[in-house]
Amino acid sequence: MEFREVVRRRRMVRSFTDTPVPGEAVDRMMEHATRAPSAGFSQGWAFLVLDTPTDVARFWSATSPDPQADNAWLRGMRTAPVIIVPFAQKDAYLDRYAEPDKGWSDRDEARWVAPYWYVDTGMASLLILQTAVDEGLGACFFGIPVSRVEAFRAEFGVPGDHAPLGAIAIGHPAATPKQGSVTRRGRREVTEVVHRGQWRS
Amino acid sequence: MEFREVVRRRRMVRSFTDTPVPGEAVDRMMEHATRAPSAGFSQGWAFLVLDTPTDVARFWSATSPDPQADNAWLRGMRTAPVIIVPFAQKDAYLDRYAEPDKGWSDRDEARWVAPYWYVDTGMASLLILQTAVDEGLGACFFGIPVSRVEAFRAEFGVPGDHAPLGAIAIGHPAATPKQGSVTRRGRREVTEVVHRGQWRS
Repeated sequence: MEFREVVRRRRMVRSFTDTPVPGEAVDRMMEHATRAPSAGFSQGWAFLVLDTPTDVARFWSATSPDPQADNAWLRGMRTAPVIIVPFAQKDAYLDRYAEPDKGWSDRDEARWVAPYWYVDTGMASLLILQTAVDEGLGACFFGIPVSRVEAFRAEFGVPGDHAPLGAIAIGHPAATPKQGSVTRRGRREVTEVVHRGQWRS
Repeated sequence: MEFREVVRRRRMVRSFTDTPVPGEAVDRMMEHATRAPSAGFSQGWAFLVLDTPTDVARFWSATSPDPQADNAWLRGMRTAPVIIVPFAQKDAYLDRYAEPDKGWSDRDEARWVAPYWYVDTGMASLLILQTAVDEGLGACFFGIPVSRVEAFRAEFGVPGDHAPLGAIAIGHPAATPKQGSVTRRGRREVTEVVHRGQWRS
């Protein structure tokens, strides 16, 4: 698909059909995710791929604050046959920038203008969302409740130095109306967020 | 250009020819950037576009720790006719999630599993880098030294609630060999960063 078409079509999909996601599509998502840029080429990211009904069910059990919870969002999201959890590994960045060619002699976080471990894994996550569109699939990026992160780590054996960014649900989109905050809030105009030459308030 | 081709071709370009960048290409970058996803559709981002020689020179003066500095990286980067600075606005997210439909009654940052203001602006920044490739241009994302952020804010009137993520240099790529950390470090294998069903160390 043309790049512009991928950009235009990408939206959050929150309900899926039971058509399976081909393994090659997931492989392509991972190939593309690892082509994201990263500060100092640190590549401090990792991805947990859950693509069996059992593993997806384990994800929802581990991350749901209330196992009895039942709402439209959850019912839709639980139909996704694939979940990918992207992680940011800050230590990889602090280590990388303490190497001789970067010239910082310590791992002080105050040197960082922005937490590139989150920025770069965000870019990798967008590549997963875009690749889903390019493969004729739909996807939704969503948060994991802070209160469930430890249970999620325990369930899947995730080490403490890898911070989950959220999770991405992937599948064939069910025909549903547009929903979510995008409909209620509307997009900010380009002229509102772009400043040329000088900030104007 | 095909999406896959954009992903395959995107790399950091650190030296540019003097061919001007069409204004429509910059407009498309901004249109695409504002189509990035954002948590709760908060859209807590802004972009400073510098596309005249004077404004680009102001950027380099404001952000260079040593005005006399001269090195290959700087000489290359200063040839970029366009600089775009993306900003993350945390307050837009804290405000958004204190709205009734999100159900958080305060602006406590401990609720956030990841700083989505940086994640989402990172995604918007990737859309700028990708659109440069789609337009036949080259781009480089780079950091602004922490020690120069205040001088940069003062020069361009950037308010304190907008955090610069770094900066993106854009132009027509000069023919230069591959360089930078990507060449020295090599890409991590997909199998090294992807965990299936369970983390394996």
